[in-house]
Amino acid sequence: MSAKTIRVGLIGSGFMGRSHALAFRMAPAVFDLPAGIELAMLADVDEPTAAAAAKTLCFERSTGDWRQLVNDPNIDLVAITTPNKWHKPMALAAIDAGKAVYCEKPLAPNASDAKAMADAAQAKGALTFVGFNYLKNPLVCLARDLVQSGEIGEVWSFRGWHAEDYMRDAAEPWSWRLDPAGGAGVVADLGSHIIAMAHFLVGPIETLSADIHTVIKERPVAAGSIATKPVEVDDMARALLRFANGASGMIEASWVASGRKLNLAFELTGSLGTIIIDMERMNEIRLYRAGADGREDGFKTILANADHADYAPFCPAPGHQLGFNDIKAIEVKHIIDAMMGGPSFQPDFAQAYAVQKVVDGMLTSAREQRWVHL
Amino acid sequence: MSAKTIRVGLIGSGFMGRSHALAFRMAPAVFDLPAGIELAMLADVDEPTAAAAAKTLCFERSTGDWRQLVNDPNIDLVAITTPNKWHKPMALAAIDAGKAVYCEKPLAPNASDAKAMADAAQAKGALTFVGFNYLKNPLVCLARDLVQSGEIGEVWSFRGWHAEDYMRDAAEPWSWRLDPAGGAGVVADLGSHIIAMAHFLVGPIETLSADIHTVIKERPVAAGSIATKPVEVDDMARALLRFANGASGMIEASWVASGRKLNLAFELTGSLGTIIIDMERMNEIRLYRAGADGREDGFKTILANADHADYAPFCPAPGHQLGFNDIKAIEVKHIIDAMMGGPSFQPDFAQAYAVQKVVDGMLTSAREQRWVHL
Amino acid sequence: MSAKTIRVGLIGSGFMGRSHALAFRMAPAVFDLPAGIELAMLADVDEPTAAAAAKTLCFERSTGDWRQLVNDPNIDLVAITTPNKWHKPMALAAIDAGKAVYCEKPLAPNASDAKAMADAAQAKGALTFVGFNYLKNPLVCLARDLVQSGEIGEVWSFRGWHAEDYMRDAAEPWSWRLDPAGGAGVVADLGSHIIAMAHFLVGPIETLSADIHTVIKERPVAAGSIATKPVEVDDMARALLRFANGASGMIEASWVASGRKLNLAFELTGSLGTIIIDMERMNEIRLYRAGADGREDGFKTILANADHADYAPFCPAPGHQLGFNDIKAIEVKHIIDAMMGGPSFQPDFAQAYAVQKVVDGMLTSAREQRWVHL
Amino acid sequence: MSAKTIRVGLIGSGFMGRSHALAFRMAPAVFDLPAGIELAMLADVDEPTAAAAAKTLCFERSTGDWRQLVNDPNIDLVAITTPNKWHKPMALAAIDAGKAVYCEKPLAPNASDAKAMADAAQAKGALTFVGFNYLKNPLVCLARDLVQSGEIGEVWSFRGWHAEDYMRDAAEPWSWRLDPAGGAGVVADLGSHIIAMAHFLVGPIETLSADIHTVIKERPVAAGSIATKPVEVDDMARALLRFANGASGMIEASWVASGRKLNLAFELTGSLGTIIIDMERMNEIRLYRAGADGREDGFKTILANADHADYAPFCPAPGHQLGFNDIKAIEVKHIIDAMMGGPSFQPDFAQAYAVQKVVDGMLTSAREQRWVHL
Repeated sequence: MSAKTIRVGLIGSGFMGRSHALAFRMAPAVFDLPAGIELAMLADVDEPTAAAAAKTLCFERSTGDWRQLVNDPNIDLVAITTPNKWHKPMALAAIDAGKAVYCEKPLAPNASDAKAMADAAQAKGALTFVGFNYLKNPLVCLARDLVQSGEIGEVWSFRGWHAEDYMRDAAEPWSWRLDPAGGAGVVADLGSHIIAMAHFLVGPIETLSADIHTVIKERPVAAGSIATKPVEVDDMARALLRFANGASGMIEASWVASGRKLNLAFELTGSLGTIIIDMERMNEIRLYRAGADGREDGFKTILANADHADYAPFCPAPGHQLGFNDIKAIEVKHIIDAMMGGPSFQPDFAQAYAVQKVVDGMLTSAREQRWVHL
Repeated sequence: MSAKTIRVGLIGSGFMGRSHALAFRMAPAVFDLPAGIELAMLADVDEPTAAAAAKTLCFERSTGDWRQLVNDPNIDLVAITTPNKWHKPMALAAIDAGKAVYCEKPLAPNASDAKAMADAAQAKGALTFVGFNYLKNPLVCLARDLVQSGEIGEVWSFRGWHAEDYMRDAAEPWSWRLDPAGGAGVVADLGSHIIAMAHFLVGPIETLSADIHTVIKERPVAAGSIATKPVEVDDMARALLRFANGASGMIEASWVASGRKLNLAFELTGSLGTIIIDMERMNEIRLYRAGADGREDGFKTILANADHADYAPFCPAPGHQLGFNDIKAIEVKHIIDAMMGGPSFQPDFAQAYAVQKVVDGMLTSAREQRWVHL
Repeated sequence: MSAKTIRVGLIGSGFMGRSHALAFRMAPAVFDLPAGIELAMLADVDEPTAAAAAKTLCFERSTGDWRQLVNDPNIDLVAITTPNKWHKPMALAAIDAGKAVYCEKPLAPNASDAKAMADAAQAKGALTFVGFNYLKNPLVCLARDLVQSGEIGEVWSFRGWHAEDYMRDAAEPWSWRLDPAGGAGVVADLGSHIIAMAHFLVGPIETLSADIHTVIKERPVAAGSIATKPVEVDDMARALLRFANGASGMIEASWVASGRKLNLAFELTGSLGTIIIDMERMNEIRLYRAGADGREDGFKTILANADHADYAPFCPAPGHQLGFNDIKAIEVKHIIDAMMGGPSFQPDFAQAYAVQKVVDGMLTSAREQRWVHL
Repeated sequence: MSAKTIRVGLIGSGFMGRSHALAFRMAPAVFDLPAGIELAMLADVDEPTAAAAAKTLCFERSTGDWRQLVNDPNIDLVAITTPNKWHKPMALAAIDAGKAVYCEKPLAPNASDAKAMADAAQAKGALTFVGFNYLKNPLVCLARDLVQSGEIGEVWSFRGWHAEDYMRDAAEPWSWRLDPAGGAGVVADLGSHIIAMAHFLVGPIETLSADIHTVIKERPVAAGSIATKPVEVDDMARALLRFANGASGMIEASWVASGRKLNLAFELTGSLGTIIIDMERMNEIRLYRAGADGREDGFKTILANADHADYAPFCPAPGHQLGFNDIKAIEVKHIIDAMMGGPSFQPDFAQAYAVQKVVDGMLTSAREQRWVHL
């Protein structure tokens, strides 16, 4: 193992902050990393909150001022897990301070902010990493390999969605996710995942026609409150897509999809085969190869195993399964590798900006009821 | 059993003609019908073909001239299973001759022909029946009951498709399905099924934005031939939908969906629940009802049984399963019931014309790259 | 159609009688049979019952005396669908009268009766057919082909069961199925199916160790009655098996398997592959072939299609699915073929006697708590 | 974090040693534990191996002599992950030294050794923990709750197995798993898992009839070697079971189950419902409750979520899934809780001895071909 140690500064300690902390802690125990990881500092909204979180999440130092963290000379990597509207100022400051930046998705509330971030990273030569988690699933990597090697032929169709139901209940109160200052609603929160997946597997989306909906039009201002506040962002969104490589498709995002919990799923059809993945069964991929004897014409269901990228270090035994946090640990591994001169990480800010352009394109298309060229 | 007998004249003896013949034969043995069924006459392209088919399919008489069949005074019901472009002249002649008409889907090559057919039926007061088979699946009826009774709440979303792969292989030769005279390609052949399903479950589609594609641009003129012919119709089609009742959705039709065989499937989401059906498992419905204790929050998989419409006469035992031809026998039962004064059958020509308007709307929308109001 | 016609006499018009009637009616319309089928006569407990059933099920004549039917010179094939205890006298009389006999499973209440039936058939050279339905499923035939061709290697293991829940409710009243005069309980009713499947796929069972249970010890004498009657037969049974070919396995039968409807299922493992079938999804087979690249190591799910035995005549399109009654029509086809000199039918009485020996062996093994050699 | 810290000594650094190390590292980051965890010392076959493993797995000290570890005064908990034949001497020494002991399953090569271990623990009042991992799956806990609360009624049947295929290939070489000094073959390695599951969910097994098999009778002495060595242990085992509470069942263990990777699965049937779990989909449980309206009669598929035991600390979002290593981290949490005075851990040595008695009972039953009372 190298003498080098990556010193991590984490901003935010909510759901994703906690997930980052776990991943930073787990990755060195799972993988033979080219550098160590030090949980150096945690920033949160105020000092007591940050101190408590630092203790729980095993960070050495804490601060109630994120600017202090991004400017600390003993931090190499700044991880941003705050609500979306804070991503830009934090990332710009971190880039300016010469840090590598690991930012949760979606990158920014809108494409112009995302562009500013990508431009800043490029200008400074900063290494940037955006946390689209699911792209690091070993079976998604298998899907990509199958597509890129031509094994399923010419890509014809991508049909995908990300459906969950955490906002299904009209009694679910208003939250930062509904703040228009943070950008779109579900099209940003979940839609960005399925867009990133489409980009990763099929390539750039060129044109689209979208429709967006707000089915729950007002929500309690707080849990149990009678007072309500109008909902200004979308909770269901769909788009028809045309890709640069000639493929076409359609996608959907919904956070009111009754019964769905992590239904980030797609069916990718090529002239020689089809790939199906659904993250509700994240250790399975279904693969169809055309041309079998008719008696054996069907989809194979493959369980993740040690022949798939990044699985073996977790467990040598096939089918023993990775969980949500394991995928995040793979993401951290790829970040450390990239910071130590290994393969470049994707999606970086530039690629996440491309995702954001699709998000914005969907909003524009829906508002103006027309096809949009990106 | 009534003394009354319905005398059937069948035009066509291909895949669907055969399926009709089987259904007419099976229905009286399965159901306690209000009238008998007589397989009176079969018409096909020429007399020898018709005679051979009549013998195989147990029809009494045969003819090489369909006009003779539709005008025969001893025929009550004319069943049309020819390629689409023949539906209109045959149906109009049959209506004119005072017959009830049972026509395979899609009703016509285009909406104006379909309208002419629906208008003629209305003018004559003719009973008409369109063979959208899958709507007669007992579990589709359960889905409809659940929607109409409000048990899944306000309908928010319908995401559906009909995907098969019988045209996936570029070596699959040109056929009548590709003849532009018959109207659209897959959007008519399979798309009409998913449109009819959407109408049946959610109600009328008001506006749509569609995209259509021809991924295999030429095909052999005949099996094994080196000579090819350009393909002028679509083999993959998609649309964003808005329904009259405020719901929205998206649909797809593809006959190049590698690996898919009868993937007519949908997920219908309401504020209180979700229904999922896939005809590749036509004896299963998945039902989610919101509000369960979190420990038991999930979809139920229900096997068709004697508590579902029209199942019991096939078999008293649950989960023993119906097949494709059984669903067609249910369709025949509903036709006989309607002809004997029972509940009206749907979809009739007027309802199939509404489906055809969506098909045409998709073509227009795709051609003009704009939203279309129907 | 051939000049030859097989004249059928059916005894019984309950669940299975009706299923036979449907199958006899459907088979000629589906298959190109070497002989016609005439629904000649139906016998039931008394003349009015028989007459009514004959009308419903489209039989020409009826009788309240089954002996009249078996001795009628214008009957070629006697189909027996009565409770088990009647199988022997009816079959012996039919054989004696020179008829071919089609008897529902289980063949008899015990092995000695079954042996008498098999011996009589052999002595007379009678053609006999036992209705184990599920063996005629095209995918079960595929399974057998794969086993016999050695494609899954040496057979190591057969784990199977037939589980339903029609007797789960203690309020379900006493019925003929519980009459000890009819032989065993579930081990005969459902167990015989999984035994027949094991024989069909793996070959003869040589030794076994079994255990049987009566979990509901008394039942109402009639629906809703307060008076109860003790249950003397088994409702749950299991056995360890050793086959003549060296394979081993275990089986279970239960009619109190809460939630299960047609869970006749098995996993057959060989040195080179594994086959899984569950009749609750009777149009699917799961096949594993060892030796794939680890990245593609998994089970294939294959939908029944026209490349599988006897599927094509129902429908040319793959995945369009057969139902319970269709499988019975295939059984009738195989009977007509055998009667017209085609391939011999299995299981005949001799093979059903072998099944019955396993049933009896299970009872003996369980009673004496020891391994039994058959 | 509490002032108290549990100092862990780990013996062994193979598959399970690594899994322990990960779990000890992850548990404090996931759970709010009542004590800290210090990775104090790692022992392996020799000092260099131990030192290298200690570095990789983040242990502070290392030793080539496990006796040094168990006698170290600065160790509180000894974790044993060596081949089975070493469990007894190590555990006895650790108990003697006053340590708590965390031992991998199976506890010992045979029941008498297991008894000695359980007796020693009881005599010393030692806390003991056996690593049956899968019992800590949140959905297995749900299953137990449902059973114990009577929600599925009287337990009638338990049908389960643990099937994998890591020894399927006859070219797979001889290894310590095949060493008869370590006890049985698959019946110990995988069988102990399904036995422990049966005990956990249904209660003690009282009598059994078993059969065991060695289907691959010799294996290469080493990978690729032509020289072979006879296999003396079982690779496929089955048993009929009777439980103390009146339930019955059957189980199987196989490490030659072509295509199976982590098929530790069971169907537990009660008078009011049924529970199905398969670890190949470890985040799903299928639950049937009798009594639903027939139209909605079916199994519910529930995804693990924050309402299930121990899930929430990993992720607040439902359906986001735990992996194999996460379950091990839950096991560590339960150990730390037990060591700090929380709920007692199960299975301890006494309970694992009960499992071992069933393993031995299966061997005896199979050898003597008779039912065995435990």
